[in-house]
Amino acid sequence: MASTAPSGPPPSGGPVDPGLIEDLVAASRILAAEGVLDGYGHVSMRHPGNPDRYLMSRSLAPALVTTDDIMELDLASNPVDARGRSMFRERFIHGMIFKARPDVMAVVHSHSPAVIPFGITQVPMRPTFHMAAFLYRQPPVFEIRDVAGWTNMLITSNHLGAALARTLGENSVALMRGHGNVVVGPSLPIAVFRAIYTEVNARLQTAAIVLGGPVNYLSPQEGDIITNQEPGDVGRAWNLWKTKALGK
Amino acid sequence: MASTAPSGPPPSGGPVDPGLIEDLVAASRILAAEGVLDGYGHVSMRHPGNPDRYLMSRSLAPALVTTDDIMELDLASNPVDARGRSMFRERFIHGMIFKARPDVMAVVHSHSPAVIPFGITQVPMRPTFHMAAFLYRQPPVFEIRDVAGWTNMLITSNHLGAALARTLGENSVALMRGHGNVVVGPSLPIAVFRAIYTEVNARLQTAAIVLGGPVNYLSPQEGDIITNQEPGDVGRAWNLWKTKALGK
Amino acid sequence: MASTAPSGPPPSGGPVDPGLIEDLVAASRILAAEGVLDGYGHVSMRHPGNPDRYLMSRSLAPALVTTDDIMELDLASNPVDARGRSMFRERFIHGMIFKARPDVMAVVHSHSPAVIPFGITQVPMRPTFHMAAFLYRQPPVFEIRDVAGWTNMLITSNHLGAALARTLGENSVALMRGHGNVVVGPSLPIAVFRAIYTEVNARLQTAAIVLGGPVNYLSPQEGDIITNQEPGDVGRAWNLWKTKALGK
Amino acid sequence: MASTAPSGPPPSGGPVDPGLIEDLVAASRILAAEGVLDGYGHVSMRHPGNPDRYLMSRSLAPALVTTDDIMELDLASNPVDARGRSMFRERFIHGMIFKARPDVMAVVHSHSPAVIPFGITQVPMRPTFHMAAFLYRQPPVFEIRDVAGWTNMLITSNHLGAALARTLGENSVALMRGHGNVVVGPSLPIAVFRAIYTEVNARLQTAAIVLGGPVNYLSPQEGDIITNQEPGDVGRAWNLWKTKALGK
Repeated sequence: MASTAPSGPPPSGGPVDPGLIEDLVAASRILAAEGVLDGYGHVSMRHPGNPDRYLMSRSLAPALVTTDDIMELDLASNPVDARGRSMFRERFIHGMIFKARPDVMAVVHSHSPAVIPFGITQVPMRPTFHMAAFLYRQPPVFEIRDVAGWTNMLITSNHLGAALARTLGENSVALMRGHGNVVVGPSLPIAVFRAIYTEVNARLQTAAIVLGGPVNYLSPQEGDIITNQEPGDVGRAWNLWKTKALGK
Repeated sequence: MASTAPSGPPPSGGPVDPGLIEDLVAASRILAAEGVLDGYGHVSMRHPGNPDRYLMSRSLAPALVTTDDIMELDLASNPVDARGRSMFRERFIHGMIFKARPDVMAVVHSHSPAVIPFGITQVPMRPTFHMAAFLYRQPPVFEIRDVAGWTNMLITSNHLGAALARTLGENSVALMRGHGNVVVGPSLPIAVFRAIYTEVNARLQTAAIVLGGPVNYLSPQEGDIITNQEPGDVGRAWNLWKTKALGK
Repeated sequence: MASTAPSGPPPSGGPVDPGLIEDLVAASRILAAEGVLDGYGHVSMRHPGNPDRYLMSRSLAPALVTTDDIMELDLASNPVDARGRSMFRERFIHGMIFKARPDVMAVVHSHSPAVIPFGITQVPMRPTFHMAAFLYRQPPVFEIRDVAGWTNMLITSNHLGAALARTLGENSVALMRGHGNVVVGPSLPIAVFRAIYTEVNARLQTAAIVLGGPVNYLSPQEGDIITNQEPGDVGRAWNLWKTKALGK
Repeated sequence: MASTAPSGPPPSGGPVDPGLIEDLVAASRILAAEGVLDGYGHVSMRHPGNPDRYLMSRSLAPALVTTDDIMELDLASNPVDARGRSMFRERFIHGMIFKARPDVMAVVHSHSPAVIPFGITQVPMRPTFHMAAFLYRQPPVFEIRDVAGWTNMLITSNHLGAALARTLGENSVALMRGHGNVVVGPSLPIAVFRAIYTEVNARLQTAAIVLGGPVNYLSPQEGDIITNQEPGDVGRAWNLWKTKALGK
């Protein structure tokens, strides 16, 4: 039924388990409830049946997202079946990261408040505790001025999305100067977990710096062990967050 | 029916769409819910049918405002139809700004907590992220001592309101030393948006200063592009805030 | 019915308007809701019919207080009609302040968190904005070591209560080193207002100090005008707080 | 019915009063509600009938714990009757502390956020007010690197649990570098109280340090009096917390 003509919308990656759609709705509401997102920001997941498609809400405040708001897009961020729904202007962040990073299954873009100061000072984010071990590779800072000069700061094209994806490289988190950050993960719950603990870690690191003197961050070895060899139990927090977000 | 005699109350600017009154009620409750207002402070909008009138709650805590509390005033802040309702002692802030700034359609006066320290130190507010780009023109600080010496700090006359409006000039925000701030906008949602993100920006700027070292604020060019040329989607947050504030 | 024998409980100051009792219950719940009190701390009011009596909850977490928990005590903090109810161990704070300060109609004792640091550093509390103008007379700090050496830090006798009252002097607020503070007012709503804005002011003053450089506090003249000559509209906030605290 | 063979599960310490189980459920929910625990962390109590057993939730987010989730374990952290329930990977913290400290009746392990910075800087925790007097013996910091080199930071064996218990020694609190802390008490309400006020004290101490200059902490004598000779009324807060946590 969907048009497959070159000039038409891209074909769908196929039907998606409603439980996964519900997870994506929950992710959006969780990130709002935990203070990572406010009226802005978004979370996406790669299509489980086709790595060249991803799923994301229409343009809407994250706390208001429902199942019907989830859209499917290709990696150039063209919608499969727009049905008149408006899309996020910065969806290119997601498409270009999914394109550059086959290992990434979910992407969060936020204006996570405690993190912003680390993107506009010369203080790198470092992991203060094991919950934020994934920060062991110092998150890079994306400077849009280097790519596009004076702008409205937004990633409104695949060109800019690809530049951000290059800065992200193989990291879990990249800061965006004067804007926010992106967080990625090998699953939706892990990306949500990382987005939340990036915010928490920013608060703890700020407090540690305020106390004064040298700070004893997690070592790269500790970060690597926790992130890559012996990951913690993300499901325990995910179940709590989802229970609260969906009110059941 | 309303008296039009020189010594009587000013005539009404005409009936107002109930949806706009509801927006003004929502604005009051939103600003309370977001921590910009507590038991004090107020928000007004210019009368949509007559630029020489404005609408504002009677003297009441912002979280308690309902449709029946909205009054109409002229730019000298005389009520059209008081019906025994008491008025805010500082309504002159609103009238005098509406008089001085024909482009302004809504005014917020608050004691927004994170902003107060910037009015009593020598640290100017600067935009830390694109959501607060409207701060790109450094907000001036109003010093009531310069106009009136030792006072109760309140703007209780058109004389003081006009002085504050002069300090505001063409800016979006003016701080009031030892008191609070005023925020204006070309629409009610934009004024509410700016009041909220002025508070958020104050928190972020404080945290950035705490981290130490130079801070890379938005450039004036970036501020100008976002504020005047390519404004963001205020409606997305406004819909969220209004949904939460009105419980529907 | 109540015994008036010298060795018995003191006679009652007479019946009290139930609306005033409800206000005292509301005050207790308001201070808990606003973060001034947690499971500890208390608020009292002078008996409206007899200046030698005061009213206060039995020993109970402030958020749980109901009408039946209100007790009447004399200024030596003996209960008029205990009915087996246990009393706060630090009730002597209230009795001795009511005795020393005939102008005081209500007393709040709290561990208000943002205020504690000002009692253990050498930084005096100063008013950052007009809502905290009553701090214009620098709040003194009570050092229990000067009176009693090493103690459990509590004001558990009339001797200690009197010492604290002497430190308070004619001020609205006294800090208690390593413990908390007391706030007094000429009415219950004003004492509650001052307790809440003492906490808010402590947060704002801390932030101003963090920003660095000289801080432009309210002048003594401004503090005096607002506190003694042209007090603000406490009723507006009181109505909001009471509406929220009593759920009606 | 339960196997008592050497290779089987340990025998039960006997039935436990349902009111005590409810207290343990409440403790878990209280610590979540007060921000000491998030999706992680745990609280345990010694078996009232057998000092060689303790009670603790199965592996679950603390806010979701119910009566059916409480398990019984021996001091080597083997379950008496697992019934397929998964256990916390760090239960060895609890077992080894109960073994080393016969006086301890309850243990809390958390990632209490304000406390983390004190474990990664050289600033020792000190009591800022009487509610945190139990910190008068400077809490030691456990460095897992000293025991096990590069790890996932978790206490996943009796060997590591015993090392942590040695660092704790006779203290009420031990910090865990880059991880969190443990808090112990002679009763469940006291352990919960201490965990909550350890978090509060960390916030207050950070603010005091931010204000600058010398800080006048509680003296060891004051700490000792309050902790060991004249303990405060923990029941007052416990009743409040339990009422809120269990919604009744």
